[in-house]
Amino acid sequence: MSGSTFGSIFTLTTFGESHGPGLGGVVDGCPAGIALDEALIQRELDRRKPGQGVASTARKESDRVEILSGVFEGRSTGTPIGFLVRNEDQRSRDYSKIMDVYRPGHADLTYDAKYGVRDYRGGGRSSGRETVSRVAGGAVAGAFLASVGIEVTAYTLELGGIRAQVNDPWGAQDRPFFAPQDEIVAEWEQRVAAVKSEGDTLGGIVEVIARGVPAGLGEPVFDKLDARLASALMSVGAVKAVEIGSGLDAARSLGSVNNDPILADGFASNNAGGILGGLSSGQEIVVRAAVKPIPSIAKEQTTRTAQGGETAIRIGGRHDIAAIPRINPVLKAMAMLTLADMLLLQRRMGRS
Amino acid sequence: MSGSTFGSIFTLTTFGESHGPGLGGVVDGCPAGIALDEALIQRELDRRKPGQGVASTARKESDRVEILSGVFEGRSTGTPIGFLVRNEDQRSRDYSKIMDVYRPGHADLTYDAKYGVRDYRGGGRSSGRETVSRVAGGAVAGAFLASVGIEVTAYTLELGGIRAQVNDPWGAQDRPFFAPQDEIVAEWEQRVAAVKSEGDTLGGIVEVIARGVPAGLGEPVFDKLDARLASALMSVGAVKAVEIGSGLDAARSLGSVNNDPILADGFASNNAGGILGGLSSGQEIVVRAAVKPIPSIAKEQTTRTAQGGETAIRIGGRHDIAAIPRINPVLKAMAMLTLADMLLLQRRMGRS
Amino acid sequence: MSGSTFGSIFTLTTFGESHGPGLGGVVDGCPAGIALDEALIQRELDRRKPGQGVASTARKESDRVEILSGVFEGRSTGTPIGFLVRNEDQRSRDYSKIMDVYRPGHADLTYDAKYGVRDYRGGGRSSGRETVSRVAGGAVAGAFLASVGIEVTAYTLELGGIRAQVNDPWGAQDRPFFAPQDEIVAEWEQRVAAVKSEGDTLGGIVEVIARGVPAGLGEPVFDKLDARLASALMSVGAVKAVEIGSGLDAARSLGSVNNDPILADGFASNNAGGILGGLSSGQEIVVRAAVKPIPSIAKEQTTRTAQGGETAIRIGGRHDIAAIPRINPVLKAMAMLTLADMLLLQRRMGRS
Amino acid sequence: MSGSTFGSIFTLTTFGESHGPGLGGVVDGCPAGIALDEALIQRELDRRKPGQGVASTARKESDRVEILSGVFEGRSTGTPIGFLVRNEDQRSRDYSKIMDVYRPGHADLTYDAKYGVRDYRGGGRSSGRETVSRVAGGAVAGAFLASVGIEVTAYTLELGGIRAQVNDPWGAQDRPFFAPQDEIVAEWEQRVAAVKSEGDTLGGIVEVIARGVPAGLGEPVFDKLDARLASALMSVGAVKAVEIGSGLDAARSLGSVNNDPILADGFASNNAGGILGGLSSGQEIVVRAAVKPIPSIAKEQTTRTAQGGETAIRIGGRHDIAAIPRINPVLKAMAMLTLADMLLLQRRMGRS
Repeated sequence: MSGSTFGSIFTLTTFGESHGPGLGGVVDGCPAGIALDEALIQRELDRRKPGQGVASTARKESDRVEILSGVFEGRSTGTPIGFLVRNEDQRSRDYSKIMDVYRPGHADLTYDAKYGVRDYRGGGRSSGRETVSRVAGGAVAGAFLASVGIEVTAYTLELGGIRAQVNDPWGAQDRPFFAPQDEIVAEWEQRVAAVKSEGDTLGGIVEVIARGVPAGLGEPVFDKLDARLASALMSVGAVKAVEIGSGLDAARSLGSVNNDPILADGFASNNAGGILGGLSSGQEIVVRAAVKPIPSIAKEQTTRTAQGGETAIRIGGRHDIAAIPRINPVLKAMAMLTLADMLLLQRRMGRS
Repeated sequence: MSGSTFGSIFTLTTFGESHGPGLGGVVDGCPAGIALDEALIQRELDRRKPGQGVASTARKESDRVEILSGVFEGRSTGTPIGFLVRNEDQRSRDYSKIMDVYRPGHADLTYDAKYGVRDYRGGGRSSGRETVSRVAGGAVAGAFLASVGIEVTAYTLELGGIRAQVNDPWGAQDRPFFAPQDEIVAEWEQRVAAVKSEGDTLGGIVEVIARGVPAGLGEPVFDKLDARLASALMSVGAVKAVEIGSGLDAARSLGSVNNDPILADGFASNNAGGILGGLSSGQEIVVRAAVKPIPSIAKEQTTRTAQGGETAIRIGGRHDIAAIPRINPVLKAMAMLTLADMLLLQRRMGRS
Repeated sequence: MSGSTFGSIFTLTTFGESHGPGLGGVVDGCPAGIALDEALIQRELDRRKPGQGVASTARKESDRVEILSGVFEGRSTGTPIGFLVRNEDQRSRDYSKIMDVYRPGHADLTYDAKYGVRDYRGGGRSSGRETVSRVAGGAVAGAFLASVGIEVTAYTLELGGIRAQVNDPWGAQDRPFFAPQDEIVAEWEQRVAAVKSEGDTLGGIVEVIARGVPAGLGEPVFDKLDARLASALMSVGAVKAVEIGSGLDAARSLGSVNNDPILADGFASNNAGGILGGLSSGQEIVVRAAVKPIPSIAKEQTTRTAQGGETAIRIGGRHDIAAIPRINPVLKAMAMLTLADMLLLQRRMGRS
Repeated sequence: MSGSTFGSIFTLTTFGESHGPGLGGVVDGCPAGIALDEALIQRELDRRKPGQGVASTARKESDRVEILSGVFEGRSTGTPIGFLVRNEDQRSRDYSKIMDVYRPGHADLTYDAKYGVRDYRGGGRSSGRETVSRVAGGAVAGAFLASVGIEVTAYTLELGGIRAQVNDPWGAQDRPFFAPQDEIVAEWEQRVAAVKSEGDTLGGIVEVIARGVPAGLGEPVFDKLDARLASALMSVGAVKAVEIGSGLDAARSLGSVNNDPILADGFASNNAGGILGGLSSGQEIVVRAAVKPIPSIAKEQTTRTAQGGETAIRIGGRHDIAAIPRINPVLKAMAMLTLADMLLLQRRMGRS
């Protein structure tokens, strides 16, 4: 209710700030008997680490996860799975320059308005570092989904306005930028380098797909699968739009074009993105997130101090040039958490 | 948890199908002392009625609301507000043609997969008629928001690919198509007529804005204001994408362009759509929903029966040609319900 | 969250006051395919009606239930089940005597403190009449439980300090006072008549038992089955204590006496009340509620007005002399709602 | 929803087993600006440690708490407060004797029925050790309550059938057995010693009171303050009954006796336990929990193995002879968590 718990039955509760002792969370509701260990979670955390492409910061974080409960002899016990990732890279810095300044595009102003207290050492709870807990929790969800034959992947569809062809979506996890084709990587590297040299930053689009999802997942009316997915992805900082299937294009289409004919052996197309009336149709689930450029830019910007005066700010340092590709495993994690939750909800409502 | 309750503190629980005795709901958590009566709710319901423009069905529904509890001497008492709208237009029809056929783009197939039972007289719970309860509940939320100086409006930004200029957003409630300018109305009427004559249907984009929202609304991390709004709008049937502020365009922008500079007297632009780090910034909240074309088309389509065979279907009758404009008051209602809930959540967490 | 919704998956949301148009509710999460009609709900409502014994008021309420949604051709469809019971007996009365007086033992003072608004025509939401919605919702839960072989009964164990022998718990539903033996009825009638003639009121103890509950229901740590049952029963007005199994006696027992030995063919005793570690054990669930005397007495009492002055009050009229027996179907309903919810929760967490 | 989260706005989510790496939790929803540090939490944890009286085990646990997030410069920041207590005393033991045996009065059988997996090294999630997280979370709630003038204490009212006089309830925190009078301590020590020498165990009654609670806390209908408190206390292992105010005695009282007259300067008595109609009345909140004898006894008992055969068991070792007094800080913690949550709920619903 205060925003740190995701889901209703398969839940993830997270805690932690960028400059505190550590980040972690509690997964509650994971069924017993799921194969699970620290290596499985670590693999996902490593995908979110800096240095996964030239768009990333040079900040070193080893981000080792420790499972604190809920796993016994390599399997989940059905009890809550607590985990912890200690913060390591907390060099003492001089915060005097930024502690009173509201960085444009950041949450400094709004957190101050809400809490009247601000951890000026970093974004605190609004920092992208918070997503460590999402990725770890999502890995647990992924283990559960794998046990019932559901797979999820996330890949970069567009970066800096350059769109990829989706030739190999399931191989994207092992490619730079989590690209869905080989050829695009060099183009994106050039684009990133050019923008970086200008002190600016880039946005893009990430597509998340899931296969093996049975028909009937989702709860009418307010907890439709697409509503839940939209909330899940939009809850990730930097996401400004979420599309399902044909998405925004559907608004400019005709009914006769946008409808997916149903043939005896399945759907003839997938403009619905695998969701009809808020319930999964058995097709591949397709959802996209539009990611804004990182607001920390090296160019000078006008902004306001906590005291109300105007000032100029230039944010240097170890910052990423784009949330992509590091946001990909985060968005994948959110989709996995959503599907795990909806699957458990369905188990007790469906006809069987 | 089973999808018929929206919100966490200011909640709306709905019930009802298109062909049953009626639709209704329960608003719980509305503070005591809010001015409220049936006329206020009726006004919003009337906005969602057929005949608000040429895009609408000729079906006649008087949709009279009755308040059943929670209001005494013209004010809310703090106890749950029950309401009921009886279905009137239930002419007996011959359902034999559609009772075994999965209409493309509809939820027939997915509901059957989920429940194994299907109310073949209409869309049942997946019918657009379900939104009667949303609009009534939203009107109560609107009364509460008005009492604290928050106003919400929704207007059609685009219909059939033809985009309006937003000259008069706050006057849109009284214009055909809920249009934000006068001139566009004739253009849209022509477009609708042309598509209708071809037996086809149209989509469009609705923009919802809110003014007077104080800074600090929203709960990090998972219950960000934008995440909640995305879920609220996406939960409405026919919505395939949700954008906040610059939305999809942010993905193709640069940080230096997309950031909103903060001047001494306020923000210089509003690409953020009034939300930073998931919390309201005090600016106008701006959110858009992409609405797909109505799937019930008069053209012949290929589909499947419940028994598995292929068949052709042509859906005639009293159907709308576009969910717009009737979806506008629904989307406005969802935004109002979201803001009312987040406002009450904030009341107990903020610094005051 | 604002108190009008019970349960997490199988939920009941209620509305309505004693002197408004009616009372009702929404059951969400009931699986599809459960046999259900108005007669089934009416039967339980009739059990809660006045005139079920000499302890009851003479007030006439026909309390006819109407199902508004969620049932098609005699079976639940999986969508929310809305229902409505109209208030009929609203004779216009002179409220001037009580509208400013806080009746002792009633919620007048506390509702005024909370809401600052008071429906002075009756207890409003704190009236016992609110339980109409609980009983109707509980009947739906009972239909679901019956479909999986679970039965629940409630009987009066003690009235005015006179304890019954539990000779026939499952026949109690058809006996005056919902008595678990024939002989006690005359004794209780005498006790009630004597107290009534003195203008005073009585309390008692109700026992609720459930058979057919499979082992493993309940969620550690905070949603233990006994914690949920305690909350369910204590949420009924007039209940001041809840016991599980040996209950209060356990506090004065020894471990060697209170433990239930486990033999090859089952438990040797049931001091645990069918719950171990918060999970059902497969034994009969046994829970008791202590019910206070009805606070509306014909004797003169000292109390305070809303303005702060002391005054004397004597409450005459059509009031019951004891909440028993009319509270029995209410407590049974709450137990059934709890078990239905825990059963659905278990379905998706257990090993199967 | 899966039982490891308590509360709705001020929430505590816990994790951890008796024999895993550690226990911990996340407090979400604590307002910003509350004075808070590890010492404050540690003080409560120390009260629950073994050796607080002769009834306790000799097991050594230092139980040092580490705050992982949500506190900055000695005050809460409004973000989730994560904490961790590492398990230290995990000597390797021979579990072969108990790993297949269902201990009477324990949750071994029911956990096995639910999960089909059992951490045979100890009670796992059903172990009393789980309450470490409750006490730590409760301490945070207590800090918040103290900031608004609410104080809570818990004391032993009865042990082994010997009842104390409540001479000094607020001094009980510093007395052996958390006794509310000095004289009773020696009597209880003798009773405990006698029962221990017989290899048996004892139960008792703990009373929890709160002062400074404003009128109006609680949510009608299902989230009454007494319903929430009942659930909170009953969720603690070993509790078999919960009473509010006059509790069970109310069932044997008359209306004229049990009603609390309201005088101009306050209530004349407190049979209601400070709660009317489910809302706080401004009086002291009074609630009691009946605690069963610890089921681990040194005497021989008959029980069943997982394979179905009968066997005899005798449980020796480092076990407590009574859950009292170590359960006292746990019950106090649960009451504090409940009050903190209800207070935040009230903040946004009341008239102010």
